[in-house]
Amino acid sequence: MAASPSEDWKAMVAYVTRYRNLGGILGLLEWDQQVCMSGGSAGSRGAQVAELSKVRHAALSDPRCGDLARAVLGSADADLGPEQPSGSVRAAAARAVLRDHSRAAAVPAVLVDRAARARTAGFTAWNRAREAGQFHDFAPALAELTEVARAEAACHSVGEHLYDGALEGFDPGARVASLTPMFRRLGTALVPLVQAARNARAPDALALSVPEPAFERLNRHVLDAMGYDFERGRLDLAAHPFTVGVHPNDVRITTRLLPDAPLGTLGATIHEGGHALYEQGLPVEWFGTGLCRAAGAGLHESQSRFWENQIGRSRAFFRWLCPAMEEACGHTIDPDALYRSANRIEPTFVRVEADEATYNLHVIIRYELELALFEERLSVAELPDAWNAAYAEWLGLDVTDPRQGVLQDIHWACGLFGYFPSYTIGNLYAAGFGKAIAADMPDLLDRVEVGDLAPILRWLRERVHSRGCEVDAPTIFQDAVGDCDPVEALIQHLYDRQGALYGISRPIAD
Amino acid sequence: MAASPSEDWKAMVAYVTRYRNLGGILGLLEWDQQVCMSGGSAGSRGAQVAELSKVRHAALSDPRCGDLARAVLGSADADLGPEQPSGSVRAAAARAVLRDHSRAAAVPAVLVDRAARARTAGFTAWNRAREAGQFHDFAPALAELTEVARAEAACHSVGEHLYDGALEGFDPGARVASLTPMFRRLGTALVPLVQAARNARAPDALALSVPEPAFERLNRHVLDAMGYDFERGRLDLAAHPFTVGVHPNDVRITTRLLPDAPLGTLGATIHEGGHALYEQGLPVEWFGTGLCRAAGAGLHESQSRFWENQIGRSRAFFRWLCPAMEEACGHTIDPDALYRSANRIEPTFVRVEADEATYNLHVIIRYELELALFEERLSVAELPDAWNAAYAEWLGLDVTDPRQGVLQDIHWACGLFGYFPSYTIGNLYAAGFGKAIAADMPDLLDRVEVGDLAPILRWLRERVHSRGCEVDAPTIFQDAVGDCDPVEALIQHLYDRQGALYGISRPIAD
Repeated sequence: MAASPSEDWKAMVAYVTRYRNLGGILGLLEWDQQVCMSGGSAGSRGAQVAELSKVRHAALSDPRCGDLARAVLGSADADLGPEQPSGSVRAAAARAVLRDHSRAAAVPAVLVDRAARARTAGFTAWNRAREAGQFHDFAPALAELTEVARAEAACHSVGEHLYDGALEGFDPGARVASLTPMFRRLGTALVPLVQAARNARAPDALALSVPEPAFERLNRHVLDAMGYDFERGRLDLAAHPFTVGVHPNDVRITTRLLPDAPLGTLGATIHEGGHALYEQGLPVEWFGTGLCRAAGAGLHESQSRFWENQIGRSRAFFRWLCPAMEEACGHTIDPDALYRSANRIEPTFVRVEADEATYNLHVIIRYELELALFEERLSVAELPDAWNAAYAEWLGLDVTDPRQGVLQDIHWACGLFGYFPSYTIGNLYAAGFGKAIAADMPDLLDRVEVGDLAPILRWLRERVHSRGCEVDAPTIFQDAVGDCDPVEALIQHLYDRQGALYGISRPIAD
Repeated sequence: MAASPSEDWKAMVAYVTRYRNLGGILGLLEWDQQVCMSGGSAGSRGAQVAELSKVRHAALSDPRCGDLARAVLGSADADLGPEQPSGSVRAAAARAVLRDHSRAAAVPAVLVDRAARARTAGFTAWNRAREAGQFHDFAPALAELTEVARAEAACHSVGEHLYDGALEGFDPGARVASLTPMFRRLGTALVPLVQAARNARAPDALALSVPEPAFERLNRHVLDAMGYDFERGRLDLAAHPFTVGVHPNDVRITTRLLPDAPLGTLGATIHEGGHALYEQGLPVEWFGTGLCRAAGAGLHESQSRFWENQIGRSRAFFRWLCPAMEEACGHTIDPDALYRSANRIEPTFVRVEADEATYNLHVIIRYELELALFEERLSVAELPDAWNAAYAEWLGLDVTDPRQGVLQDIHWACGLFGYFPSYTIGNLYAAGFGKAIAADMPDLLDRVEVGDLAPILRWLRERVHSRGCEVDAPTIFQDAVGDCDPVEALIQHLYDRQGALYGISRPIAD
């Protein structure tokens, strides 16, 4: 251990810089595989990723890493001079490092190996099961993946529920005890909206078509307005759109071209753009502290969903977008028809195609099923029936094809248990941000209508992005929006927007 | 140390697999920086490369790596059964690992650091000097780079000359004692050819123009014919074309578009394609042995130069290429005029623009200057004058702008001393291969004329690519071509091709 607080701090920063750089390279390997790498090269990438992951894990789980963080935490009172971060920043940094270190060190090597094997086998089995349309081809692999996820969660025991250990990996501080009632309250309020919409006259779905070459301009038009910095990133195509932060100065977006559903492409572009703005807005001067990082997956999703839904599905946004859409489509378009079409309520089997209101029901179903699997109230064999029953109950849909049902998401096949809730946590935060920014900026919609989105980005940069993970997501949210019940904000937002389109008023008591 | 020969072998393979994978990732980082990364992200890449290089260097220099290789070498007599490589392969693998390990372990950490700093500073100073057109802006950095290169070469002492230690890093087995007389003999034979060409009537330079979009088809046409596997690689654009083997199954080519010099683009594409065919043809089943690797930079260059010159500048090749060129240019072209234009002898200031004959003079000049710097017969301050004198003597050119002179190459700015000879070693080997393949395949040119290049690739795959670095380059060369003096082969080739175009006969005695 180094001798002085200043040396401890420097040593910890060197340590964090090291594993952040290795993490950035892992991000690049993933991006390259999805965007650039040829099909025949696929076999070589797994070993490279595994090797680098091992190096990164070793750096993180090294006892020296924990010792350094504890030393920094112990000397947070010391004043390191005007050039160095304050004691509270150093303490926050040390806590973040300790959390990473503890999570890495907590999982025994034998479980790390077992998990890697389960994920490789799981992904293969899932693909095979989807091809055959047979859940039972995936069932044994999923049983093992569930066991592994439970064992990992047990290593990270943080709350009273086993599942809290899984949540903690994505959303530090999220707990079953608070999520379950929030999700129940939200779901219970949304079901009547979806039901009523089924019985009401739906707005027309606008049939639009954009030739592939026109998309580049359209995507750029939107991302430029949002403030995405192309000089510190790039936009590419990928089968499943994603964003990757190779470094806060190298944040890459992908989207997909849907010539007959251009609003789907734009939705993906705006969504990923929202993620990218968060990454580009992180405090890069804190790179080596470990605080230059999103404060959880839910807050990350809040940034993508905020832009995609709160802004990108607003009437004002479509008014601004319309001329560019007209140019891309080659004919005139009524912006209000665009708005109505984009805000239809339409229960569908597939989450990623869902509208704003039903989307959360998809997530809540997955959350409750994961929880039941974790608590062994449900077996993997019973999962398809439970899935189908939930879709009938919550969305009024009769699932007949598992590819459109329990096999649709890649998450479980990759061992990602505990991630799904982040999507709805993101929607909840986004609704809170939407409400607060509207209160802060009375001319918000006027600005959106002329494409002046810079003040929105400034608002988010100041209140969310620039804070990194100095404090946790709930604190960032509360500091940004003040006293706000996000469940209430989201329900009201969905009634105000989608409900209004259908002439559906919110019941007096949900 | 593991207990049995079989366990030692497995452990060494695991070790090699590890550092080969890390090396492949470093290749990808480089490729991404040149091809994909946005300008504003540049600052982040250096730290990532440095971090990963450190990890790779630590793996390689770890004493355990040397111990394992020595254990494998000591038990090469043991029979590990039919599924495992023979004792001779294992011994060759262990020797390759030992060489890598010794090179990594030989350089003390303080020199590794000094070298990294010298290269960073050198590259910056070189860029500044080029902008200003002033060598003295680069001189202090170059003096340090030379000192570092000499110190590194001293760590790798392998021959009687200090410079042998520099050569060994690129061309194992190459020595000043044999290179100097070969290069002198070659240079002495080429100067009269170049002189005579100056006084003879030159073939017309064909003015051609290809619109940028047409290049993709043209490049693909050529690479497909060569047998480059696009399924295990890809073609992109880069300011300075290069090839990178991220893995033998992921070998990526770059080229550059020169609309007014399409033969320049095709030359670059074919050159890089030759490198790529070598990498794609390495014995991938030996990936973990360390033998799945080129047997030196000279042999690597022989593959690119063979395709670029021996094949790609032949009359038969231009006859095959002509229809595609006509389509790209939009008018008829005489294939023989194409051939003559591509084989003009034209002394130029810049190596990368040189014709086949003068190219070697550029290399020989650099080799002799590097050697003089290493042996302290020349100081960095005297270098520009020595450079200019050599260009006057060997190429009859009066260098006035250092940007077209001593500042033209990036090599020294990056600390790459000892690499230049590889280019001419490559040309020498390529001439030997050209002679041998013509003897083995009497219908070679008929096949080239119809674009049937597959038998050529098969010949190279069998005799060169598939051998990896099981034996050294001189052995691979000799096994492939039998009794052949490559200097004689190259001189004769250049007189047969370029000399003949100018009506210049070879003097009875060079």
